[in-house]
Formats: sequence, structure tokens, C-alpha cells
Amino acid sequence: MCRWLAYSGTPMLLDTILYRPDHSLIDQSLRSELGVETTNGDGFGVGWFTEESSTPALLRDVGPAWNNRNLHEMADHVRSPLFFAHIRASTGTAVQQSNCHPFRHGRWMFMHNGAIADFHLVRRDLILQIDPALFPDIEGTTDSEVMFYLALTFGLEQDPPAAVARMAGVVERTGREHGVELPLQMTIAVSDGVRVWAFRYSSARESRSLFYSTRADALRRLHPDEKFLQEVSDDTRLIVSEPLGDLPGAWNQVPESTYCLVQPGVDELLPFEPQPA
Amino acid sequence: MCRWLAYSGTPMLLDTILYRPDHSLIDQSLRSELGVETTNGDGFGVGWFTEESSTPALLRDVGPAWNNRNLHEMADHVRSPLFFAHIRASTGTAVQQSNCHPFRHGRWMFMHNGAIADFHLVRRDLILQIDPALFPDIEGTTDSEVMFYLALTFGLEQDPPAAVARMAGVVERTGREHGVELPLQMTIAVSDGVRVWAFRYSSARESRSLFYSTRADALRRLHPDEKFLQEVSDDTRLIVSEPLGDLPGAWNQVPESTYCLVQPGVDELLPFEPQPA
Amino acid sequence: MCRWLAYSGTPMLLDTILYRPDHSLIDQSLRSELGVETTNGDGFGVGWFTEESSTPALLRDVGPAWNNRNLHEMADHVRSPLFFAHIRASTGTAVQQSNCHPFRHGRWMFMHNGAIADFHLVRRDLILQIDPALFPDIEGTTDSEVMFYLALTFGLEQDPPAAVARMAGVVERTGREHGVELPLQMTIAVSDGVRVWAFRYSSARESRSLFYSTRADALRRLHPDEKFLQEVSDDTRLIVSEPLGDLPGAWNQVPESTYCLVQPGVDELLPFEPQPA
Amino acid sequence: MCRWLAYSGTPMLLDTILYRPDHSLIDQSLRSELGVETTNGDGFGVGWFTEESSTPALLRDVGPAWNNRNLHEMADHVRSPLFFAHIRASTGTAVQQSNCHPFRHGRWMFMHNGAIADFHLVRRDLILQIDPALFPDIEGTTDSEVMFYLALTFGLEQDPPAAVARMAGVVERTGREHGVELPLQMTIAVSDGVRVWAFRYSSARESRSLFYSTRADALRRLHPDEKFLQEVSDDTRLIVSEPLGDLPGAWNQVPESTYCLVQPGVDELLPFEPQPA
Repeated sequence: MCRWLAYSGTPMLLDTILYRPDHSLIDQSLRSELGVETTNGDGFGVGWFTEESSTPALLRDVGPAWNNRNLHEMADHVRSPLFFAHIRASTGTAVQQSNCHPFRHGRWMFMHNGAIADFHLVRRDLILQIDPALFPDIEGTTDSEVMFYLALTFGLEQDPPAAVARMAGVVERTGREHGVELPLQMTIAVSDGVRVWAFRYSSARESRSLFYSTRADALRRLHPDEKFLQEVSDDTRLIVSEPLGDLPGAWNQVPESTYCLVQPGVDELLPFEPQPA
Repeated sequence: MCRWLAYSGTPMLLDTILYRPDHSLIDQSLRSELGVETTNGDGFGVGWFTEESSTPALLRDVGPAWNNRNLHEMADHVRSPLFFAHIRASTGTAVQQSNCHPFRHGRWMFMHNGAIADFHLVRRDLILQIDPALFPDIEGTTDSEVMFYLALTFGLEQDPPAAVARMAGVVERTGREHGVELPLQMTIAVSDGVRVWAFRYSSARESRSLFYSTRADALRRLHPDEKFLQEVSDDTRLIVSEPLGDLPGAWNQVPESTYCLVQPGVDELLPFEPQPA
Repeated sequence: MCRWLAYSGTPMLLDTILYRPDHSLIDQSLRSELGVETTNGDGFGVGWFTEESSTPALLRDVGPAWNNRNLHEMADHVRSPLFFAHIRASTGTAVQQSNCHPFRHGRWMFMHNGAIADFHLVRRDLILQIDPALFPDIEGTTDSEVMFYLALTFGLEQDPPAAVARMAGVVERTGREHGVELPLQMTIAVSDGVRVWAFRYSSARESRSLFYSTRADALRRLHPDEKFLQEVSDDTRLIVSEPLGDLPGAWNQVPESTYCLVQPGVDELLPFEPQPA
Repeated sequence: MCRWLAYSGTPMLLDTILYRPDHSLIDQSLRSELGVETTNGDGFGVGWFTEESSTPALLRDVGPAWNNRNLHEMADHVRSPLFFAHIRASTGTAVQQSNCHPFRHGRWMFMHNGAIADFHLVRRDLILQIDPALFPDIEGTTDSEVMFYLALTFGLEQDPPAAVARMAGVVERTGREHGVELPLQMTIAVSDGVRVWAFRYSSARESRSLFYSTRADALRRLHPDEKFLQEVSDDTRLIVSEPLGDLPGAWNQVPESTYCLVQPGVDELLPFEPQPA
């Protein structure tokens, strides 16, 4: 399992979000409180959008985030309006760069915390359901990347919620065909550089933790002296596996079987159900 | 493409073979003369059999062999009667440990120099022909590992030459189905810890270089003062992508479309042809 | 800070000691209970003696021990009568192979848990007290390696306890000259391939934890069914930063300001005091 | 030895300079033509200035540049008006991140190709001449970093040419005191984010190659159709260990015992001589 965060809003130095908070993602790499594992040290990745390119830049490596100097360098020098960060705790697949999140396809970025149960049993059948034209782009061996490519197969670039719902449907059906009772456990983030979708779902309806931050304008009224809140736009938003601190009123749990859409204008919180593919 | 060597004979400190010769594999990692690339710096691996275990030990890493300290340490401290060593020049697939040779399945070890042409076109179709029971053990993304698992599917552990011939047949048929004229280029080594099989074949019948060493007793008569030859048994044998030096009479080219079998007793040199699978 | 273990006795597959125990060193890399940090994921090292060489073999790498495949491979395939293993939690110095323990000089091996307080203040003055003839061999930037080279300067190869005592004396004097009240915190292991010395000391007389195992013959009487005990000689001994399990009677704390000498025949437990250098 | 380049001028995607030219630095990492070694695969580094920070960002890693994905990602997504890039061929010191160039101190960046002859003989004496207040910042073990810290000791931040001259003087004097006839071989680049100084010098007056690019306005008259030249300001300048291509008139050798100053306005080419420190 893993921990992740997605940021969208006022262009921000990555350091402000990744290192500075009391219970930052870097701190979570050593001391996760809500994750399945305390330690998330099996690789990491950051992906960020800039004005230079329509595709996000990725920095991924196989060591722990907490001691990685290149990550710290980028955090100190890169400002971005939309970025993902992910720390990995391998559930058995190899610790290698191609298994580090976020994954990318064109301008789309994807990251995941959770697991396809008994992945070794269903991997082959799932891979066969990926569009053969996309198949050559698979580089790693994780269940997460297979989920991404299934979602791409089912139209992620056209309609993310529908594509993720069909992916989840396929994973559940395939798992059950192999006798797996509870095939899926997932919290997923997806972005095209403008919007961020975040999904919380599990077959058992007991999904891993997922939180979204309160709108900055509302939070600013509660905490008028909080410096960070004065520097960000009203619609700056964070979605995180676990809260980055304990500021009262700042964090709201994404409900079970729900997805959020963070976008310019009004964000949305909507029900999520797997669909037959 | 890559360079490799296989050693079988008197238990030998790895250093003697890997580092000491004038044109050792370490030297070839910087200055290959017969390879497609001069530099073979995209990872390396060594696998050796010992009395401690029925499976070979593997040391593989993603950096170049020439500056790897752990490799040098093992070379200085490990003695083995049968070992493989491989240096990689990636033809595009990721530089990661799971893509480094040798590959292992139980007590079987496999390494390869060459390529399946247009692998991205045929990868999916080839993977589908791997025994589903073996499929979950695939860890990397190379054509070489797919070749190994196809050979295992076709009975490598029972009859290596027949299994490799069927693997080559499948690769050629699948390639041609996708319009690839010359689908296969390979020099392969396989071992079960007792015998070593080495194959040289390509669809174009212009295979990468492969050499076997002259029997030590014959070579000793030519070079009575050569110290190395006095320390090894008559049937000590090396198979290499390119000669480790220029000792006259020491190296013999494996003929086109041929395989060698190195074993206790008399070695063999036999014709190789792909077979329909 | 860090965790380590030293093994001496019946030649043993490393796996038996490094991976198998309930609270093995690998488990401690994720979940240390007595260490300063819970996580020890900033590199690792193993050093072992074999009959092949008078020097120990070293395998060291910068990632965490818990996911390192080469470490697992060596553990599965190497048998040794005397080995050290170390997992690192950096106190600030770079995570690089040359900072991983054990350190080696000729046939001598050294590892350490602890710290020289305010090392950045005293590093230069300490380095100047290293024998200039040894100076070029320093490869890393840790306080631990400086302690090793100071001990070598003071005759480690002739009289380890006296040399370590003078090293500790120099570190304390130099620290105090820079206004550091409690300059030293150390648990050290040293070996020449035959004997193992382990030291527990700190300026505050509140040293990090260190334990030695009960003699196997005594422990066997307590636990006649314990399989491991039936396989080892009476004088097989482990010295560890924290116990590898909770077998009653198995682990004894090394007293404050004390060193043990593990050797063929009778082991010793003797007082340790820094000496003026 | 190594290869490097320094870019100053119109803000440019790193990819344009690092990967696109026929004989780019990436190509030189595999096939250097003028360097001491053909292969420069023992680590790399890139440092760039942006508007986000007064300090340059550094990306450095221990593998070869040619297969590093994070480097390629940054090259594809980072635009900068002033950046350094360096590929390393170790002359024996460890392949570790802290030995990769560029080195940084505050907003100052430094890189080097060359060597202090018999560095192991003089290292201790040179280190002692570094300002003790700077000493704790030394992280690696290269001669290059020692040269940087000596130059900082002698006022690099106030007067770079004078400080580098005194550093070279100290290196030559110290070498000769140890019986080294030709103590220094260097091509150095230094920047504060606005200006770039590049030095070419060796005790033998046979310095490694160093080239500067012709002013873009002059070159544009020669090659009116060259697309790159139409995109850059007149004073855009490259300084390189070896030319990135063979465009006639584009590259000029920096004369022996000379330094260039690249700056807003008129660049300079001035004589360089070591000075007594």
C-alpha cells in the first residue's frame, strides 16, 4: 500500500506541500498513521504540470523519499499549479522505477493506493483486456499500472469517471471468476493538467482513507492568521491519503464509494459504482 | 545487445575470469569489439552455483559492471564450478534489476544476447503463448525473459534443445504474422547447474558472435607455460560472446545455427533449427 | 543511529540469522523497538569471512535492507562462520555506499551504532589525528569511519581494546575542546576473522542497547526442542543491538562501559574506559 | 576525466542543448571523441538557475546519463537561461552522488574536468588549507570538490579569477612539495547565476580541450537557415569540453592558460596564471 497527495490551485513551490507540513508526505514515508504500513519506503514519484509542456514532468526513484536529494532539490526549485506525489510500500512487486507512481500517458497522470487482491491470479486475464494498441506502453509490473491501462482502454481520456467505473467492474468480475471474494481496494487520482478526479472505493466498502481539504476561503475564516491560507486562491485544493496536519476544520473524509472532481470553478463530490465493462 | 560468458569446470574465483583477462567481460563493458554497441553499461548480472544450494545465487544491478563494487567484492570472494556473467546494452526496455540477466527459474539459469525484432509489435502475442501457470513469475519487460518463459513453457527443464527450438519457432512464426521479415537474433546460454547449453541462431543466419574455448588439455600442449591452464581440469570450458584475449588457438567460433552442450565427459556441438511449437 | 549484529560460531547460512528470526535485523529495518529511530532504511551492509580469502567479503548498498534482492540472494547462498550485518539510519551524512558499514581495512572489519556529538564541529580536528599514511583510504564522510581510522591509527590491529579506548579518549577530549559536553555514544563491533570484540560506551554512561546471546549449551538445556540450538556449536555467539526474538534466557545485556571478546574457547566480558591518546 | 557544458543566454529547454545536438553531451557520455575516456558513465549532474530561487537546482545521480529517465524528464520540462551539465568518468574515487558535479555553495555552482595528479598523496595537505568554517560542507571525496572549496577559501565569491588562480597556485605548490612534477590539469566552470567563468589550464600547458561558441549574431550571418540560431539572443553562449556538432564556424578553442567570462554585454577572454596563495 502507499500514500499520496494531489495539489491543485495557486502555483506553489513543491516544498511547501511536500516537506513543510507537520505530517507531510515525507513524514508519512517514515511514520504513516492511517496506512496499512507505517513505512512507505519502496520508491516514490512526483509529477507536475508547468507552462513549458502539455505533459507533466515526472521524477521517480526507487529509494525512500525521505533521504532523496533530487526530490528535495526539485521541491525547493519547482513551482506548479497542479502536482501529484506518491510514496510506495510495495505489496510484493519489484521496487523499480517503472513501478513508481505517478504513471503517465500523454498529458494524463494516474496514481493509486490499494491493491487488486490475488493479483498474481488475475494479472494475465486483466492484461488481456487492455487495448492491444496500448499494451506496448506498459513498462512495469504493478496492479496499479494495469488499472491505469484498463481505464485508458475504457476511455479515461474522454470520461474519467465512466472509465474508472468500467475498470473497477472488470477487476471485480475477473477477480470473482477466479474465486476472489473482495477483488478491489482503491483510492485513485487522475489528472489531465486542468482537473483532478479522486476515487475512493473497495469491494468490501471499507476503503483506504482519503481526505479533501476545505475550501481556502472557508478555512481562512476559521484561521485568519494561518499564513499558508493567505497565499492561496479560494479554490486551492488538496486531496490526500491522510491529513498533512491537525488544523481544525481543514480535512474532510471522502465518503465511501465516492469520487471528487476538483476543477476551475465548483468542485463536485459524486457517488461511485463499478460498471460492467 | 549485450555480452556474456559461461564458465564450467574447476571451481574458480570469479575474479580470475571476470576481471583478470586482458579483454575480460569488465573490459568489454567499456570496449566491446564484436558487439553491436561498444558500451555495455545498462546493468549486469552474475549467477553462480555453489554447494550451499541447488539454486544459483544471483547478483544483478542496474549500473555499469565496470564501477560496481559489490560485483568486484563477489568476484574476489566467491569460487564456483559453474557461473554465468552478463553485461547489458539496453535496446530500449527499462534499465531495471528485473531486466538484468541471468534469469532464474528453480535451478535453471538463462541469459541472452540478441533481440526479438519489433518486440513491441509481438510482445502481447508472445506473452499469451506462455504457460499461464508460469505467467505470474515474469518480473521484467525484456524480450529475453519472454524467450526464457516460452522455452520453459515448451519443456526447457526436460529437453533444453527441443524447448529452445520450439521457442525460436514460435518467435519466428509470430513475428512473420506481424510482417517482420527477420524476427529473431539470439545467442543463449542455459544451465541446470551441471550442464551448459549455448545456442547461436538468427533468422538471417547472420548471428551475433559466439565462441567456445579449446579443451584445456589441447591448449596446454600449445601453451605449456600458461599458468591458468595448469590450474584447470581438462574439461574446463568457457563460452563467450567475444574472446577474453588473444591466446592463439584458444577460441573457436560456434558455427551458425549450432548449439554446444558442455557437460561432465565429452562436450557436443550440434545443429540447431527452430521447430514449429 | 543504526542496528547491527555480529555472528560467530558454526558456519551458518546468513538467511538463518538475517531473515528467519521473528525480530530479525530485516524486521528491525522496518520496526526497531530499542533504536533511536523505528526505521533503519538508509543503506545496509553485510560482511562475511570465508575460506576463500583472508579478507571479508562486503555487500553494501544505499537502499533499505528490507527490499534488497541482492542481500536476500547472498543470505540464501552464503554460509559463513563469522559475519557482521548493519542497517543504517543516517544522522545527516549522505546515503552512499561509502558510508555503509561494515568498514574494512585488510582483514579487519568494523561497524558502529551511535554518534560523535556535533560531528561537524570536530570532524576536521579528528581527521587530523588520523595517521597520514591511512588518510588516503578514507572513502566516506561518517563519524563511524573516522572512529575506525582513529582506532587503526592507535593500533587496532595489535590491541583492539587499547586502540578503541584511545580512540574514545581522543573523541572525548576533542569534543570537550569544542565545548561538547557529552561527545561520544557508541556500540562498536570489530573482528579480524577469528575473534570479535564488541564495545558499549557513551560519555553519558547511557549507552545504546547491546546484547549477547547465552552460550548455546546452557540455552539448549533450557530449550531442548529449539531446532536452531541443535545445529550450532556450544560457543556459537551473537552480539546484537536488540534481541532477535523473545526466547527466554537467550539474551543478556552487555553492561554499561563494557566490552565482550568472543573467541575460540572462553569468551570474556571486561570493563571499558576511554584512555588518553 | 569528464565532459561538461555551460549554457548562458535565451531561456532554453534543457533538451535542446543536452539531447538534440548530433554530438550532444548525452552522445559524448557514450562516445566522447576528445576526452581521455570514450565512455563517461560514472554519474552525471545538471544544475540550472530559475526565477524561483537564488540557488541553482541540482539533479545528480550515479548511473550513466544516457539511460537516466529523470534527467530526460527534466530536460523535457525545464527551461533555464543559465545551466551546467556534467558527465563523469571516475579516475578512481567512488561513484556516488556527492562526487557528481556540479557542486554548489549558496548561489555558486562549480564543475570540473581534469585531475590533481597523485591526489592521494596531496589530499590531506590540500584539505588542511580549506577554511575550517567551510570544511564541514565538504560531502564527497573528489579532487574537484577540494578545488572548489579551496577556491571558496580564497574568495571565489568576491573575485573568481583571482580565487581560482590562488587555488591553482596552492595545488601546484603542494603537489611539487610531494614530488609531483605536473600537479594540475583543469578545465573549470563557475557561475553565480548571472556570469559564467570558464578556465583552461594545466601545469604541462597541455590542457584538456575547451571550446566556446561563436556569438549568435555572427554565426547567424554564416548560417541564416539554422533554426536554433533564430531562437536565441545574440549573446547566447555555450562553453563545452568538446563541440556538440560540426557546424562550420561555430566553435572556437579556448586558448591554453586562458579564461573566458560570459556575461550580459561583452564577453571576455583573458590570460590565466596560477598565483601564490
